[in-house]
Amino acid sequence: MHERYLEDLRIGARFEGGPYEVTESAIIEFAREFDPQPIHLDPKAAKESIFEGLIASGWHTAVITMRLLVKSGLNLAGGTIGLGADELRWPKPVRPGDKLRAEVEIIGLRPSRSKPDRGVVRIRYTTRNQNDETVMTMTATVLVLRRSAIQQPSRKD
Amino acid sequence: MHERYLEDLRIGARFEGGPYEVTESAIIEFAREFDPQPIHLDPKAAKESIFEGLIASGWHTAVITMRLLVKSGLNLAGGTIGLGADELRWPKPVRPGDKLRAEVEIIGLRPSRSKPDRGVVRIRYTTRNQNDETVMTMTATVLVLRRSAIQQPSRKD
Repeated sequence: MHERYLEDLRIGARFEGGPYEVTESAIIEFAREFDPQPIHLDPKAAKESIFEGLIASGWHTAVITMRLLVKSGLNLAGGTIGLGADELRWPKPVRPGDKLRAEVEIIGLRPSRSKPDRGVVRIRYTTRNQNDETVMTMTATVLVLRRSAIQQPSRKD
Repeated sequence: MHERYLEDLRIGARFEGGPYEVTESAIIEFAREFDPQPIHLDPKAAKESIFEGLIASGWHTAVITMRLLVKSGLNLAGGTIGLGADELRWPKPVRPGDKLRAEVEIIGLRPSRSKPDRGVVRIRYTTRNQNDETVMTMTATVLVLRRSAIQQPSRKD
């Protein structure tokens, strides 16, 4: 798959990943390890909660989104190295059987101020379920390499 | 363990969780499922990267932090139901063998505008390694129940 450098990216470019089915057993397994709460672990207790049924941890949705991004066509050279994330929101819960798709859009691009071989990309994530309802949104800042750093190595002689 | 309602919380209150050791095998297992990139999967490839060795996915650090919070003394009534997160940053990488501790501090409290049985808490997270270096920070908005909603049920007669 074609690797993308800073110079290959344009504001407004979009990439998609998915679908990824979220099973009840995956919800429970993730929760047991990282978010051990009844609404994520116990279908009966979850039924009596304000969610009226088992829901995935929001962090489970976040890491599934990361997986979908890594496997999408974005494919940044050097990998997707996150510097930070903002405005992470979960407007609707994810339930067993949901099939998630993640869309990423490039919303900002700039060369690094201190390191000429890299740049910083701002990415808007939107994760939707099979009914096209948005279950997660986030804005992330990601490091990306510049092609010029590869094509024009400094001379050492 | 004592469950805390909105009325039990004070701005500036702090709670701690951990330590939690992050093993090389856990880093690789998490990455295989959710962040399949060489710097998280392959010690040899990671050695040649800008990180000079295997590092945990930032999302792995985030979900470990969630686990530490759920098991900390904060123990919110009704569970820790996240509405969103902001300012998620990873100032230093997490490496195999690191022992993480998470500290949470209450930085905001308000009753819900629309639902009298609940409130919204702003929490500042700081995750540190065994050398007291900060590896992650985040601000989260969490739903919390009000005790008054439990103690004064509306009369139905």
